[in-house]
Amino acid sequence: MNIIPGDGMRKCYFDYVATNPLHPEVLNTMMPYFKEEFGNPLSIYEPGQRAKKAIEEAREQVASMINARPSTIIFTSSGAEANSFALKGMAIAKQNQGNHVIVSRVEHHSILSSARFLEKSGFVVTYLPVDKYGFVDPEAVKDSITKETIVISIIHASSEIGTIEPIKEIAIVAQERNITMHTDAVATTGNIPIDVKDLGVDLLSMAAHQFYGPKGAGALYVKRGVRIVPLICGGIQEGGRRAGTENVPAIVGMGKAAEIAKSGMSRRIEHCKKLRDKIIEGVLKIPNVHLTGHHGNRLPHHASFVVEFIEGEAMLLMLSMKGIYSASGSACTSKALKSSPVLLSIGIPTALAQGSIVFSLGMSNTEEEVDYFLEEFPRIINRLREMSPFMKKKEGGSKCYTGG
Amino acid sequence: MNIIPGDGMRKCYFDYVATNPLHPEVLNTMMPYFKEEFGNPLSIYEPGQRAKKAIEEAREQVASMINARPSTIIFTSSGAEANSFALKGMAIAKQNQGNHVIVSRVEHHSILSSARFLEKSGFVVTYLPVDKYGFVDPEAVKDSITKETIVISIIHASSEIGTIEPIKEIAIVAQERNITMHTDAVATTGNIPIDVKDLGVDLLSMAAHQFYGPKGAGALYVKRGVRIVPLICGGIQEGGRRAGTENVPAIVGMGKAAEIAKSGMSRRIEHCKKLRDKIIEGVLKIPNVHLTGHHGNRLPHHASFVVEFIEGEAMLLMLSMKGIYSASGSACTSKALKSSPVLLSIGIPTALAQGSIVFSLGMSNTEEEVDYFLEEFPRIINRLREMSPFMKKKEGGSKCYTGG
Repeated sequence: MNIIPGDGMRKCYFDYVATNPLHPEVLNTMMPYFKEEFGNPLSIYEPGQRAKKAIEEAREQVASMINARPSTIIFTSSGAEANSFALKGMAIAKQNQGNHVIVSRVEHHSILSSARFLEKSGFVVTYLPVDKYGFVDPEAVKDSITKETIVISIIHASSEIGTIEPIKEIAIVAQERNITMHTDAVATTGNIPIDVKDLGVDLLSMAAHQFYGPKGAGALYVKRGVRIVPLICGGIQEGGRRAGTENVPAIVGMGKAAEIAKSGMSRRIEHCKKLRDKIIEGVLKIPNVHLTGHHGNRLPHHASFVVEFIEGEAMLLMLSMKGIYSASGSACTSKALKSSPVLLSIGIPTALAQGSIVFSLGMSNTEEEVDYFLEEFPRIINRLREMSPFMKKKEGGSKCYTGG
Repeated sequence: MNIIPGDGMRKCYFDYVATNPLHPEVLNTMMPYFKEEFGNPLSIYEPGQRAKKAIEEAREQVASMINARPSTIIFTSSGAEANSFALKGMAIAKQNQGNHVIVSRVEHHSILSSARFLEKSGFVVTYLPVDKYGFVDPEAVKDSITKETIVISIIHASSEIGTIEPIKEIAIVAQERNITMHTDAVATTGNIPIDVKDLGVDLLSMAAHQFYGPKGAGALYVKRGVRIVPLICGGIQEGGRRAGTENVPAIVGMGKAAEIAKSGMSRRIEHCKKLRDKIIEGVLKIPNVHLTGHHGNRLPHHASFVVEFIEGEAMLLMLSMKGIYSASGSACTSKALKSSPVLLSIGIPTALAQGSIVFSLGMSNTEEEVDYFLEEFPRIINRLREMSPFMKKKEGGSKCYTGG
């Protein structure tokens, strides 16, 4: 399926972790709520109540995807909102019990920035190191806990390196000590099976546009009985925990996307894994290119690398000229022109981290697209290396990082 | 135009302050961004850059509606988010300069709740009283300022009583003392002309679904040079001031809605005012019914009343059985089953505040609808009063509030 409009040139969208196209069935489900069903869910007359009912149905669909009760789902406008809400809302709710928060160094910016906000407000934050694959060690979590620890937040999988963290093991550590545990599952929800009861977390963030749902819709799962202070204050929407007139079409779309994700998950995983493994195998044949993250225990639709002697942005541009769309890291950091903290945390030197590139796949991608990509990518790397001052230095004998 | 689906019965949607139907042109403008133009605006390849361009065009459209520079517009997911962001973000940004915040008693819940959050965080909040029309007195603002005052937030117009506040005069008071001034203009933006330079405010909140734009899109105007701490922390979206993947379709829709609102404003105001005045004139003929808010200086599409001896909810239900949709106050409070703080603040006794009802109009409404309503409403009131225990008490001679 060619999902990108254009000039007839082949287009390969390999950037599903940046955002997904909307599933056509999802859009169809949303459409009435852009037209005649525009009521405010808080209004007591019929059209309002129909909107309310649609939201509650979506809540059931999202809850069902992660094996939760509907009342535990709070709709937000994005994964970043869910993450900011979770970290600040948990910490403030428990500030009388302690002031220590634990996160990892491979968290998304929305967690890291919220953590820095908390530090400025008097909380103490531990940023846990990870190993060369990006794994957080549950033992290290245990060791970093103090009497003051109130909150632990560890990402389920980083969209930069794809590694899936041992959340279940970390949640056991948290549970045993009565510490509230959150996971940022924006990259995983809808893409791999998630059962919050099995995972054992108290809070979990998700974003609809990561599983063929609309932008502008996210959710935070909050286990029954766990207190959280609202981020967006005001009315009684979302049980008084998130104010603002509900984005009914987006919520309805998120519900439908969750339903489709649940029923089609194994088929999606199989499709993406096959293409992912083909990409990894093909790309690793290019000299001086290294996989980032773990080989096996990673997102099924995610392949990430660092390429020596060249910069990610140059690769992205050359690839996009061939109609291949990919990313040099998380979309939220790609323009910040800084080295990714996630790559530095797994031991990639600053210079090499500049050569980061991420390919992420979806149902629209085909083997033919991957074949085309695997033809073009080595040529692009060769051309860029020919122009690279770093490469010339290497030929001249200077010391280079060659991966580990 | 009959905008509510149904059974063939006449439907009059008189609840535009709860939410607006989407303008068909707005939806048309949004549609490509639900389909082929799904790129993430942070991605550097073409489809991402087209999404970015669309957002920047929307920013220009929204800025133009309020005579601001595009760079001063921060998109949010709702008016409530803009309000929470404004009040908390300003106060935290200036906490080293003082700890005193001034709001009024006719603020929206999103401001009042944010103020209470700030109180719990150590700030001191003054809740300014208003007169019987709901006006905040600029002199009272001046008198309540202390050396510690860092922020003033006064609503532009309450959607419960419609009174338009003297924001320009209050902003002068704030400016003279170097205090940051915010106004919640959710009910006014797109409905009456707004020029932020003339108003003189530093921050201003708005919501697209109040002017025929989509739900899920709001914005905060932040004057150049005014510091604000992010509410949703994370990536570099919105100049680093509001993280999260942009809700591109909703933002594009808000831009188009702003453009249409600007060009059609005088026609819209004229249309709504005519119907509003007809409603006010007709309803005030019913005995023991009182207008709330100011008669002349009010939202052009807004008529609000308190009806003695009966409850708002009963009126809403009886009206909705006749296909007439209205509200008993702000949608965000209508289900809280509490007396509205706004009505109490203008001196309406608790019992009478229960008889609150608000009719708000839009371009779809017609004179025929108003005629139909004015036929039905007195009958409904009569029927309800016949059943009312309060009414019987009155006949029996007990003391009743009869308005002022």
